[in-house]
Amino acid sequence: MPTRFTALEILDLRFPTSHTRDGSDAMNPDPDYSAAYVILRTDRPDGLVGHGFTFTIGRGNEVVTAAIAALRGLVVGRTLEEFTDAPGAFWRMLTGDSQLRWLGPEKGVVHLATAAVVNALWDLWARAAGRPLWKLLADLGPAGLVRCVDFRYLTDVLTPAEAEARLAEQAPGRAAREARVRAEGYPAYTTSAGWLGYSDDKIRARCRAAVAAGWTHFKLKVGRDLADDVRRCALVRGEIGPERHLMVDANQVWDVPQAIAWMAELKRFRPLWIEEPTSPDDVLGHLAIARAVAPVGVATGEHAMNRVLFKQLLQAGAVAFCQPDACRLAGVNEYLAVLLLAAKFGVPVCPHAGGVGLCELVQHLSIFDYVAVSGSLAGRVIEHVDHLHGHFEDPVRLRRGRYLPPERPGYSAEIRAASRAAHAFPEGAAWRAAAAP
Amino acid sequence: MPTRFTALEILDLRFPTSHTRDGSDAMNPDPDYSAAYVILRTDRPDGLVGHGFTFTIGRGNEVVTAAIAALRGLVVGRTLEEFTDAPGAFWRMLTGDSQLRWLGPEKGVVHLATAAVVNALWDLWARAAGRPLWKLLADLGPAGLVRCVDFRYLTDVLTPAEAEARLAEQAPGRAAREARVRAEGYPAYTTSAGWLGYSDDKIRARCRAAVAAGWTHFKLKVGRDLADDVRRCALVRGEIGPERHLMVDANQVWDVPQAIAWMAELKRFRPLWIEEPTSPDDVLGHLAIARAVAPVGVATGEHAMNRVLFKQLLQAGAVAFCQPDACRLAGVNEYLAVLLLAAKFGVPVCPHAGGVGLCELVQHLSIFDYVAVSGSLAGRVIEHVDHLHGHFEDPVRLRRGRYLPPERPGYSAEIRAASRAAHAFPEGAAWRAAAAP
Repeated sequence: MPTRFTALEILDLRFPTSHTRDGSDAMNPDPDYSAAYVILRTDRPDGLVGHGFTFTIGRGNEVVTAAIAALRGLVVGRTLEEFTDAPGAFWRMLTGDSQLRWLGPEKGVVHLATAAVVNALWDLWARAAGRPLWKLLADLGPAGLVRCVDFRYLTDVLTPAEAEARLAEQAPGRAAREARVRAEGYPAYTTSAGWLGYSDDKIRARCRAAVAAGWTHFKLKVGRDLADDVRRCALVRGEIGPERHLMVDANQVWDVPQAIAWMAELKRFRPLWIEEPTSPDDVLGHLAIARAVAPVGVATGEHAMNRVLFKQLLQAGAVAFCQPDACRLAGVNEYLAVLLLAAKFGVPVCPHAGGVGLCELVQHLSIFDYVAVSGSLAGRVIEHVDHLHGHFEDPVRLRRGRYLPPERPGYSAEIRAASRAAHAFPEGAAWRAAAAP
Repeated sequence: MPTRFTALEILDLRFPTSHTRDGSDAMNPDPDYSAAYVILRTDRPDGLVGHGFTFTIGRGNEVVTAAIAALRGLVVGRTLEEFTDAPGAFWRMLTGDSQLRWLGPEKGVVHLATAAVVNALWDLWARAAGRPLWKLLADLGPAGLVRCVDFRYLTDVLTPAEAEARLAEQAPGRAAREARVRAEGYPAYTTSAGWLGYSDDKIRARCRAAVAAGWTHFKLKVGRDLADDVRRCALVRGEIGPERHLMVDANQVWDVPQAIAWMAELKRFRPLWIEEPTSPDDVLGHLAIARAVAPVGVATGEHAMNRVLFKQLLQAGAVAFCQPDACRLAGVNEYLAVLLLAAKFGVPVCPHAGGVGLCELVQHLSIFDYVAVSGSLAGRVIEHVDHLHGHFEDPVRLRRGRYLPPERPGYSAEIRAASRAAHAFPEGAAWRAAAAP
């Protein structure tokens, strides 16, 4: 008997993070971390469900839930087996409704909405398989993984046959890498010390605590004021010492010439990368910046809308670090495409995380990448932000600045029922409290 | 006394065009041309309003109206003078709300929604000025036009000072060009003969009628089946003769290698351009295709999401024809940026039109481009599709395959009240009739 999808429940969940300036940067002064959240129900007697979400920063989360509602009819009534038999074709069906596709195509609100649905499908599949998502993916094998990807618009750079051959090359080391990551965890970096809204004292205190806790990579937000940035970079470099890594992140506030000029001033603090120096859409702009700021690497991807943009950033040699977002790309299938493209070009994938639940998702994808795709930890770190993990049923676990592989079945996407109730917008208790005088 | 915006009324209007296969192509088999439509009201005693819309093809139009509602608070309560004093800064404010920006940035549903609002602002301004939009724009002069544009992310290629200097160079010929376009109209091409869902007989009949009516440029949809395309290209070339122009349009269905292979077969029919050969996001892909298919020109833009993508397409030399959409770009301000960029690179702008109301909008922008920006008609044609014009208060007027300049104040965006009532979705009479057995 197939497992049929019977309902797609849609929730607008928001967390009033703007009150503490957690998450503040040069482009986003006051985010309210939010999830356009879905629960995909089935007719299984054991009550099997899948949880998934996409991430936004507040206003407009209701527009994304409206887009999820527009996708509902493409999923409800279909079966889990239709998805697992041909995950790439199922994904193409979800992104291929011609009338909805017009609204992107494959970008913006509709793509964010698709991510929520696709992530729930994968959570559901992993729960049904009784494995954490990273392990389900690793066990699919080269041919199974290639079937997950829609190669449309990629074949000038990567064909299914080439992708399968690359995956097959990595197969022999899989068991050893799985054992290693279980024992040692996956490297991470912290963004929690360097939000733009934090005072120097708060940054200093957080750097010290993070060094003491074993962190080796520290990210600082820059781009609002050059003199401030110089002072803050000096402060962080002083706290972390010459050996640990500093990364800086401008969150898209610069034009290309401005990025080059500004980084000429920050270069002396030896940042590992400059993240989002300009418009996320600007492949040629990132290339010009990369040439000018070397040996500082250019990093981007959290706002990179789809696999076609990643293809070009990699083709052009415009990025030294590739930072896909598990919710801006349309879920696991498209993220897989980016992992395969990055592996072809030998560019490390250091996923965007933070927000609400992004750490929970991307840990699966990076661990899988190490085990089955890139086969390497070199230059790879998962972003970690110390926010909101307590709202999740299966929160991330870290030890000495490294992620420990999740063990529970699924994609770690489930927000606790009590948290869902409290953060429903605008009627939940958290928002009634925020609105109170 | 300033003129204050008092309300933004939002309508979901849809036309059941899928019933006749008008508008069918290889990617979009059954569009229902739709408008997410706004009426911007003011406190002026004479009842001054602005009409604006963005264009979609059916499902999901309600997602765009939800996004317009999210923008409402950025407009209502402000004044017309705030907009006209600093149109570029006002546009930056509309696209710069950090929480809504996260949903793009500057692409997809939120950008489409912004287009509706921005187009209404310009319609309102032109009505207040008592001039058609093209004339209002032409009369702003170089400094006034530069103030309309947000140059963020453009300054590596075009600075405000360079743009103003280019506009000033064109100033001396403006009056003569205005007189010429009033007398002779603006060149156009027809897409109405070559929809993919049409039979050979229907195409043949429509070509003959169009030749008799004076048309010189004919566009044919391709990309579903190569043998079909060869037969249909031969048919159209036979009907229009060797001197008139044939253009072909694949609506994004090919990967890069497939586009190159397919066009090797269609090249012998001497198309002027191949439109949308692959993903609209793929700058490097379009460049590879352009190199392979020359002397056929590559054309794209109807799905090009914003000025940053156009900047790159032009920088790279990837397009021989630039086809911006007045509703996918966030309205007149961003379209101006693209006109300025195209003029810098000497690439003709041949706007995407058709749909519902796109012809009504882009005629203003092309006529203005000729009068004040490019100063040239060489290689320039406005798309024309013979659909739905009767629903507009100020419909396009053509003579022998040329657009005659609109004369009424405004942006020709207003859909007649009776048509708005009949096509409100899903409650209007047109939809009740469509749903009837």
